[in-house]
Amino acid sequence: MMSRDYNNIIQLINSQKDNFPLDQLFYVDKSIYELDLETFFYNQWIFVGHQSRIPNKGDYFIFSIGNESIIIIRESESQINCFYNVCRHRGSQICLETEGNSKKLVCPYHAWTYNLDGKLKNARMMYEDFDKKKWSLIKCNSKVFQGLIFLNFSNQPDDFNEFIKPLKPFIELHGLKNAKIATKKVYPTNGNWKLTLDNFHECYHCLPSHPEYCQVHSKEYIQAYGAGNNTGPESKVFNKKLDEWNNKTKELGYLTGEFSEINFSNFFRSAERTPFDDNRLSETKSGKPVSTLMGNFKNFDGGYTTIGTSPFNSLIMSNDFATTFTFIPRGPMKTDVEIMWLVDENASEGKDYNIDELIWMWNETTIADKRIIENNQNGVLSKKYKPGPLSTMEIGLKKLKNWYLNHLKKKLT
Amino acid sequence: MMSRDYNNIIQLINSQKDNFPLDQLFYVDKSIYELDLETFFYNQWIFVGHQSRIPNKGDYFIFSIGNESIIIIRESESQINCFYNVCRHRGSQICLETEGNSKKLVCPYHAWTYNLDGKLKNARMMYEDFDKKKWSLIKCNSKVFQGLIFLNFSNQPDDFNEFIKPLKPFIELHGLKNAKIATKKVYPTNGNWKLTLDNFHECYHCLPSHPEYCQVHSKEYIQAYGAGNNTGPESKVFNKKLDEWNNKTKELGYLTGEFSEINFSNFFRSAERTPFDDNRLSETKSGKPVSTLMGNFKNFDGGYTTIGTSPFNSLIMSNDFATTFTFIPRGPMKTDVEIMWLVDENASEGKDYNIDELIWMWNETTIADKRIIENNQNGVLSKKYKPGPLSTMEIGLKKLKNWYLNHLKKKLT
Amino acid sequence: MMSRDYNNIIQLINSQKDNFPLDQLFYVDKSIYELDLETFFYNQWIFVGHQSRIPNKGDYFIFSIGNESIIIIRESESQINCFYNVCRHRGSQICLETEGNSKKLVCPYHAWTYNLDGKLKNARMMYEDFDKKKWSLIKCNSKVFQGLIFLNFSNQPDDFNEFIKPLKPFIELHGLKNAKIATKKVYPTNGNWKLTLDNFHECYHCLPSHPEYCQVHSKEYIQAYGAGNNTGPESKVFNKKLDEWNNKTKELGYLTGEFSEINFSNFFRSAERTPFDDNRLSETKSGKPVSTLMGNFKNFDGGYTTIGTSPFNSLIMSNDFATTFTFIPRGPMKTDVEIMWLVDENASEGKDYNIDELIWMWNETTIADKRIIENNQNGVLSKKYKPGPLSTMEIGLKKLKNWYLNHLKKKLT
Ligand code: FES
Ligand code: FES
Ligand code: FES
Repeated sequence: MMSRDYNNIIQLINSQKDNFPLDQLFYVDKSIYELDLETFFYNQWIFVGHQSRIPNKGDYFIFSIGNESIIIIRESESQINCFYNVCRHRGSQICLETEGNSKKLVCPYHAWTYNLDGKLKNARMMYEDFDKKKWSLIKCNSKVFQGLIFLNFSNQPDDFNEFIKPLKPFIELHGLKNAKIATKKVYPTNGNWKLTLDNFHECYHCLPSHPEYCQVHSKEYIQAYGAGNNTGPESKVFNKKLDEWNNKTKELGYLTGEFSEINFSNFFRSAERTPFDDNRLSETKSGKPVSTLMGNFKNFDGGYTTIGTSPFNSLIMSNDFATTFTFIPRGPMKTDVEIMWLVDENASEGKDYNIDELIWMWNETTIADKRIIENNQNGVLSKKYKPGPLSTMEIGLKKLKNWYLNHLKKKLT
Repeated sequence: MMSRDYNNIIQLINSQKDNFPLDQLFYVDKSIYELDLETFFYNQWIFVGHQSRIPNKGDYFIFSIGNESIIIIRESESQINCFYNVCRHRGSQICLETEGNSKKLVCPYHAWTYNLDGKLKNARMMYEDFDKKKWSLIKCNSKVFQGLIFLNFSNQPDDFNEFIKPLKPFIELHGLKNAKIATKKVYPTNGNWKLTLDNFHECYHCLPSHPEYCQVHSKEYIQAYGAGNNTGPESKVFNKKLDEWNNKTKELGYLTGEFSEINFSNFFRSAERTPFDDNRLSETKSGKPVSTLMGNFKNFDGGYTTIGTSPFNSLIMSNDFATTFTFIPRGPMKTDVEIMWLVDENASEGKDYNIDELIWMWNETTIADKRIIENNQNGVLSKKYKPGPLSTMEIGLKKLKNWYLNHLKKKLT
Repeated sequence: MMSRDYNNIIQLINSQKDNFPLDQLFYVDKSIYELDLETFFYNQWIFVGHQSRIPNKGDYFIFSIGNESIIIIRESESQINCFYNVCRHRGSQICLETEGNSKKLVCPYHAWTYNLDGKLKNARMMYEDFDKKKWSLIKCNSKVFQGLIFLNFSNQPDDFNEFIKPLKPFIELHGLKNAKIATKKVYPTNGNWKLTLDNFHECYHCLPSHPEYCQVHSKEYIQAYGAGNNTGPESKVFNKKLDEWNNKTKELGYLTGEFSEINFSNFFRSAERTPFDDNRLSETKSGKPVSTLMGNFKNFDGGYTTIGTSPFNSLIMSNDFATTFTFIPRGPMKTDVEIMWLVDENASEGKDYNIDELIWMWNETTIADKRIIENNQNGVLSKKYKPGPLSTMEIGLKKLKNWYLNHLKKKLT
C-alpha cells in the first residue's frame, strides 16, 4: 500500500504481547505518530463541534489539526460548509480568528472573494484566460448529524450512514439536534494520543484517582462498566440492577441495550444505556438533575447513555445534559482533550442550569487525567519502561490496542 | 558541483509552473532553506548597516546570520574592518555586546589580544614555536560604498565594482555617504524569506492591505510601478506623467531613467527614478518634505528613487530621506526585516526632522506585511495549498521566482 | 562493537591534532552527543548526592538524566536504594516531587504498591496467574562511599572497589561520611559537556577571568597546579613550598602526595594534596576557616585536597569544608553544573559556619565560568572556528581530550 519501508513497524506490531500495553515506541516515536495521524485521525468521521455554535448565516469557527485549518461556516439555515482555510491564489489563510461572522469569504491578502458555498466570486486584475469556476475553495468532507458536525479528512471517506447506523438510536434519543453548547473547555495534555485514550478506556485507575467519579458511580458499575460495556469483571450485583432497570425503562418506552463491534472493521464504536445508582437521576454531584429534560425524555429514567463513535470522540449523556469529548493529537506527546457540555436549546443559564454544577464531575476528572497521563508519559520515556501485565479491569484498553494494531498492520501490508 | 544528491530538487525546480508561485516545499522545507542560505544569502553582496553607526575609532557593531557573528569595527577614519567574532585560540566569541567601542579586541576567555586590523598582538604562556603572525582574526569580505557597509560571505565573491556599476549613479545621487541613521527597526516575521520577498515584489496586495501606501502613491503608479519598473500592466496615465517628469528633471540636471537585469547572472538588481503624485515632494503622509535635502539635490525634484541591490536589500529614497531594507533569513519560516531611515548628517532631530513622520509609511506598511506574510505562511503549510494563477500585477514576483529557480538549478547541476 | 557505521567519527577522531582543542563537531553534534552519553556518562561511577540529604527512613530525592529519573530512597539506617522511577504496570512515574518522604512507594495511577526494597507488595484485580515476585522495581547500580551516593547506569559496571581504591585515602581523610550538606546550587550552562569540562581542566583563564580564585591562590600554584597536578609549567617556587609543606604535614600525621592515571583505562581519576598560600587555612576570601574541622583533622594543616573521580565529578576539600561538583550533560549544548558544599554534621549554621562565606569563591567562579563557556560555545558554532594552539597551561585539557578520544575510539572499534 505504502511506498516507504515499514518492515520494522510491522515486526514491532507482531511482537506486542496480548495482555500488556504497547511498547515505548508507539507512545514516543515521531514517525509512528505521523503514520497514526494518516491512518487513524485522517480516516475517521470525527465530530469537532455542534451546530449551535454557528446559528446565523456567515457564522463560522475554525478547527485545526496538524498544519490544517478548516473553516466551518453556515451558508444557510439548512447548510453548513467546511473548507480548507487556504486561498486558491497564493495560499493565504482566509479566516484569521478562531470564530466570527462573515457574509463573504474575503482573502486578507489580495482580496479574492468567495461566496459562502466556496465559489470564487471575484478576483481583480487577472489575465484574460482566467476561469473563476476552477478556483473554488477546497471542501473538507463533512456531515451534520443531530447537530454534531463531523469531518473526515480522507479522500475516500467511509460511508457516513453505514458508520452512524448502529449508534443512531442512542444519539437520537437525547435530542442533540435541539441542544446548545452550555460551555466548552480544552485540556492540553502532554501525552501521546494513545496514552491519553488508554486512560479513557479503563476504569482501573478510577478508585485511586477519581474521588468525584467514584462519588457519582457505584463500585459495581465502575468494575463492570466503568470504561464501557464488558471492559471489566462481571458484577452480579450490577447485572441484577441493569436487568431491573432495563425492564422498567422499556416500559417507560425508552431505548435500552448496548452495541459493540463484533467484526474487525474501520470503525471502533460502542454504545450502552445503563442505570445510575439508586436515587441518582443525572451525572452530578448530588445526583439531582442539573437542567431540563432533553430529546424524547418526558421523565428522568434514572439511566444514562455512553457512546464512542470512534477512538477520538465520546458522548456521555444524562437525560438533562450531554458531555462530549474530542481527542485531538497535537504532537507525538501532546493531545488536546476538548469537552463540550450540551443542554436543551430552551434551557436558560442561571434559571434552568448552572455551569459549575454541570461540568463538575468531568472537569475534575479530566484535570486529574491530564496529570495522570503526563506522569505516565514521563515514565514511559525511560529505557527501563517495559509493558507490564494488565489487570482484569483493563479490557477496554486491550480492545482499543488490538483494534489499533490490526488497523495499522492492515494499512502497512 | 555539489556532492549530495539533489535530483529531487532539480525535478521539483523543473516542475514549477510559469505564472504561478512556488510549490509548498520551497516555502517550508529545512534542507531547501539551508541550500538557499548557501546559494543566495552567502553569495550576494549584502549591506548590513551604515558607516554612521560607528563614527569613532574602535566603534563596532555585530551582524549575525545563522551561526555566524561578524564584528564590524572602525580601525581609522578611512577604514572599517569586518571579522568573524571567533577567537583563534579556542574559539570564544570576542565581542559580547551587539555594539560598543573597543581600542583593542581582547578575548574574554584567556585574553588573547588583537589589534583593530585583526593582527594578534599578544598571547601569554605559549610554547616557543608559536608564531603570532599565523593567528590573526579571520576577515569577512566587505566593502563600504557611499557609507553602506556590504558583506559577502562567499570564498570567491563577485567583483564588487561589476556588481555596483549599474546602480552607482542612482545611489550616489542621494549622498548617502554624508548621511546618518535617524532610526532603525527590526520586524521579525514568521515567514520563509521567499514568501517575505514575494510580498515585497508585488503591489497587487497594496490596495486591500496598505491604506498608507495608497494614500501616498497614485493608483496608476501602483499598478504599473508599485513593485518596481515593469512589474504590472502599463498605465498610459502614468507613462505620460513619467515622460513629463523625466524632461523636467533632466532640465534640473538630475538623473532619471531605470535599470533592469537583461541577461541572467548572479545578480538581481533594479533601479528607477519615478515621480510622486502631483504636489508631493517626499514619501510622507502629507507629501511635504520631512527633512533637509540630501546629496546632489538643490531643490526637490518631485521624484524618488527605488533600488534593489539584491533580493536581500532595497533602497527607497526621497530627496530628503532614505529608507533601506535588509531581509535576513532566520529559519525555514522566519525572516527579519531590518529597516534604517537615513537623513543628511547635518539635519538635526526635532528641528529638521521628526522620527514619527519619517517612518510613518514604511513602518505601518511593514507591520501590515508582517501580518500578511504570516497568514500566507500558515496557509501554505496546508496539504491543500497548491500554487494558484498570478495576476497581471505580480510580474515582479514572477521575475524573482524565475531568477531564483534558474540560479538554484545552476548551482545544483 | 556497535552495529551502526561510525567510520566517519573514527576518521574524525584520528584527524584531531595533538596540542589543539577538539574540532567543532565534537562540541555541537547531536549524534556525537548521544554517543558520548552512552560511552561516558552511562559508563562511569558518578556521585549525584550525599546521604545526609535523606536522613530518615523513606526520605528520597530524584536524580534525572536524559529521559531517566532515579528514585534514591532510604530503606533503613544502613541501606539506601536506587530505583528507576517507572511503575512495572503501565510505566507511570511513581515519585512526582524532586524530594520527599514515603513509607511505601505507591504508584499514583492504579496504586500498585512497592516496599522500600522495591518489592511489589500489592496490586489489585490482577488475573490469577499474576506473580508479584516478578514485578519488583528495577534497580540502578549504586554504592554509597563515605556518604557520597554513586550511580552507574551500565549493565556491566566497573568494579567499584577497583575504581575507588587510589582515591580512597584522599576522600577518607576528610570524613565526608560524617558530613552534611550546608547548601547546594545548580548552574545551568549552555555549553557542550566537553566544553564545560575543558574550562574546568585548565587554569589559563583564571588570571583574566577569576579575580576571586586569584585572590585565594598564589600565581605559582595557579601556573603549576591550578587545574590539577602537572597541568601547567613547573614552578620552582611552588615546588619548594610543596616540599616543605609535605614534610611538615607528614610530621603532623596527615596524608600528602598525589595520584594520576598512568595507563589508559576506563577511569579518569586524579588526586593531590597541596598547600595554600602562607597564612591561609581554608579556600575562603580571608583564608581563615569557615567551619569546624572535619574528618581526621585535629589542626588545620594549611593544605587542601583536590580529587577528580571521573570527568563528571570533582571534590575540592579544605580541612573545614568540601565543595563537590557534578557535571550533568543536558543536551548537545547544555550542561548543568551542580555544586554541594559539605560541612561537618555537627557544625551549626550561624554559629560555626556562614553560607555566604562558604560558597563565595566557587559560586563567583562558577557564575563566571558559565558565562565564559557560553561565549565559547557561541564562537565554536561558527564555520570559521578552527582549533587553535594550546598554551603551556592547558595540559589538563589536553589529557582529558586524549583520554576522551582514546576511549571513544575503543568503543567504536
Ligand atoms: S492569497 Fe488570497 S487573494 Fe492572494
Ligand atoms: S579562546 Fe580566546 S583567548 Fe582563549
Ligand atoms: S502504572 Fe503504576 S499502577 Fe498502573
